[in-house]
Amino acid sequence: MLEELKEKVCQANLLLPKYGLVKFTWGNVSEISEDRKYIVIKPSGVDYETMKPSDMVVVDMDGNVVDGDLKPSSDTPTHIELYKSFPEISGITHTHSRWATIMAQAKLDVKATGTTHADYFYGPIPVTRDMTKEEIQGEYEKNTGLVIIETFKERNLKADEVPAVLVANHGPFTFGKDAGDSVFHSVVLEEVAFMDWHLEALGKQDAMSQDLLDKHYLRKHGANSYYGQN
Amino acid sequence: MLEELKEKVCQANLLLPKYGLVKFTWGNVSEISEDRKYIVIKPSGVDYETMKPSDMVVVDMDGNVVDGDLKPSSDTPTHIELYKSFPEISGITHTHSRWATIMAQAKLDVKATGTTHADYFYGPIPVTRDMTKEEIQGEYEKNTGLVIIETFKERNLKADEVPAVLVANHGPFTFGKDAGDSVFHSVVLEEVAFMDWHLEALGKQDAMSQDLLDKHYLRKHGANSYYGQN
Amino acid sequence: MLEELKEKVCQANLLLPKYGLVKFTWGNVSEISEDRKYIVIKPSGVDYETMKPSDMVVVDMDGNVVDGDLKPSSDTPTHIELYKSFPEISGITHTHSRWATIMAQAKLDVKATGTTHADYFYGPIPVTRDMTKEEIQGEYEKNTGLVIIETFKERNLKADEVPAVLVANHGPFTFGKDAGDSVFHSVVLEEVAFMDWHLEALGKQDAMSQDLLDKHYLRKHGANSYYGQN
Amino acid sequence: MLEELKEKVCQANLLLPKYGLVKFTWGNVSEISEDRKYIVIKPSGVDYETMKPSDMVVVDMDGNVVDGDLKPSSDTPTHIELYKSFPEISGITHTHSRWATIMAQAKLDVKATGTTHADYFYGPIPVTRDMTKEEIQGEYEKNTGLVIIETFKERNLKADEVPAVLVANHGPFTFGKDAGDSVFHSVVLEEVAFMDWHLEALGKQDAMSQDLLDKHYLRKHGANSYYGQN
Repeated sequence: MLEELKEKVCQANLLLPKYGLVKFTWGNVSEISEDRKYIVIKPSGVDYETMKPSDMVVVDMDGNVVDGDLKPSSDTPTHIELYKSFPEISGITHTHSRWATIMAQAKLDVKATGTTHADYFYGPIPVTRDMTKEEIQGEYEKNTGLVIIETFKERNLKADEVPAVLVANHGPFTFGKDAGDSVFHSVVLEEVAFMDWHLEALGKQDAMSQDLLDKHYLRKHGANSYYGQN
Repeated sequence: MLEELKEKVCQANLLLPKYGLVKFTWGNVSEISEDRKYIVIKPSGVDYETMKPSDMVVVDMDGNVVDGDLKPSSDTPTHIELYKSFPEISGITHTHSRWATIMAQAKLDVKATGTTHADYFYGPIPVTRDMTKEEIQGEYEKNTGLVIIETFKERNLKADEVPAVLVANHGPFTFGKDAGDSVFHSVVLEEVAFMDWHLEALGKQDAMSQDLLDKHYLRKHGANSYYGQN
Repeated sequence: MLEELKEKVCQANLLLPKYGLVKFTWGNVSEISEDRKYIVIKPSGVDYETMKPSDMVVVDMDGNVVDGDLKPSSDTPTHIELYKSFPEISGITHTHSRWATIMAQAKLDVKATGTTHADYFYGPIPVTRDMTKEEIQGEYEKNTGLVIIETFKERNLKADEVPAVLVANHGPFTFGKDAGDSVFHSVVLEEVAFMDWHLEALGKQDAMSQDLLDKHYLRKHGANSYYGQN
Repeated sequence: MLEELKEKVCQANLLLPKYGLVKFTWGNVSEISEDRKYIVIKPSGVDYETMKPSDMVVVDMDGNVVDGDLKPSSDTPTHIELYKSFPEISGITHTHSRWATIMAQAKLDVKATGTTHADYFYGPIPVTRDMTKEEIQGEYEKNTGLVIIETFKERNLKADEVPAVLVANHGPFTFGKDAGDSVFHSVVLEEVAFMDWHLEALGKQDAMSQDLLDKHYLRKHGANSYYGQN
């Protein structure tokens, strides 16, 4: 079932250690099927060095395992909520990558301070509010998804235009048009979080002009883009 | 004698350069035998590139070498004291890894500021008090163990729940259920020490909520854990 | 057409990932032909892992593609303006390398604070002014070149003596006597930007003495140089 | 002439890129012959990737090339002065390694703040005073040696007990009992300079106690040392 998607999701997961975004078994990547009925996701606590496509787990939108011998990532309920509320994305990555996690722990947005940011994120990358005791002690992983969704609603953001979020005291989730695209955004997020920390430390983290943000985002995205070979 | 354990301890020592935790001959890993009568430990000042299981040294709980041609690590008396007082651990790692050592020299606890920390350490990682002139000029390595033990007693900590400590002006010791597990905790410690330094530098090192700390630690440890494939 | 130069420019572009200056398809290197009629430049958005000399694009000084199947780098108009105004250089590199980009986003010159800097840059590396709304919304890439040229004119700098500039909120451009030489200066720039950030963070970024700057720059450059085997 | 020493000095120079202490042709290592009549040193501006023992240059104590086809390092006069004044050392390394150079540019001693430092350096690593205009415009490289010697005299230091110095606005020189030993001290210096910068940035750079400094230095050096297999 969904063998091609398992292969694709497995390859995307293997990019995490390749790009230095995870240690040990940390992190997870998923992709939703085209009919948006099933999610293929990394199994929980399995080593990247031995991971293979047949280890991937297929769950339905209620979180039931419908294919696979292993338990899915413990963060699966977060992924499910995000796919339900963000129809504009089909891939999700979660890591504890160093710089994005530092910003998440500092509870600071990654501000749009340069064109590296503007090329991929159409504005600041938001940090969520703290989760309440009830949210943490209840369905924690599902509630993590809900607090992300709340953040995007309150700030009027779209998950394909700002394809990353920092969960306070936890770490980043990134989004994409497929599994690999969401990993790509994790790499870029780590880069801009690195830069932003170093600006913050100098007290120099002023936002770039809206004009420059528009110019760089829109020369890569949308109808009038002119970057690349298309 | 204890050939299997020598193999295991040698492999664990070789993880130190693999994970970038040591330079040259620095660092040492040990494991105690199941009957807790013997400790297998790295020899003093031997190169990792040529190290082999037969180089490992077996000492008894009085520090006498009972097997092996080489001198044991000069830190052996520290390991002995820790095994005597912490029956909950069977592996110990000592390094001068960069970020944990910086925090040890700054005499700052590594605070619990995010879920990466909470997944493995059930609260702040403590720094010891300064050692006295008498402790330093006396049985220094043994006293290093005793000041660690004092720190855990005073703060009411268990070495399997907070499997790391920073010795002031010196560096970290980490603990585990075996040699490899103690190295694993050295890697995680380095990661969270890195993050904490960068929060400290921004003046943003607020502790996470106890609820979130409980949630993450307990979803990975104890009777109700649900992470991984078990 | 210009096959030898394509080979050379391709090799220079491949140095960018080798020296860790770029991620993905970011960055671009060009060289101008000896008669200064044509520029050979990297294509837009093409992967370094598969890039080959025949992918290089030849444009004339009006930006028309005169050879090559791919679209040239979107930054081509910037390169053209720089070659027109700086006859003393024949190679240009643009990256978003981490440390130079941080300084560009902080809008701080990279000051001459040590001999590593003085060996290659005869004074501070300037940051441009912000671009205006009109400049951004108009011929943006051409105007990026013009604001660089304005910076060098106002500060009375020569592009072969200070072969680097930081475009505010964007990143560095570096110059050289050919494509490879401009990449070389990108590596050195990253090194001195790294050092300068760390001096800035300590509040210790005092300029070195003019005497020491003269000594180190002139022992490597000009008629009385005595470094190396020439 | 001195073929064995050329081999040894070449190998020591090749450790510089191996340990990440240099870029391009930067840095140089030398060793003095046992009779202290000749110095074998790296040639100026030669690539590490192709460097071979026969490229090494032999100079006498007046700086005359007595063997070798290439020009010696432009820093040779500095090495000569140091060997003349420091009979306790037989190897010298000069680099622009990142962290030691930052401290040299900040004109800050690398303080003794932990046991990693105390294991190899018996006290703070000094930074020289600024050189005067006359010293810079005169025999600059020779005067660089003299200002180092002055620093050790004024602070009453021995080059085998504190085998490193930072030349203000320039970078480190390290010393050893042979070429390789001086490179070893460059690696350790980089490590402790890294740590000290990060303590300085937190405002936590307090010196360790003299007792702990004594203990760690003397357990590795001198008549009563007990580290390693000797």
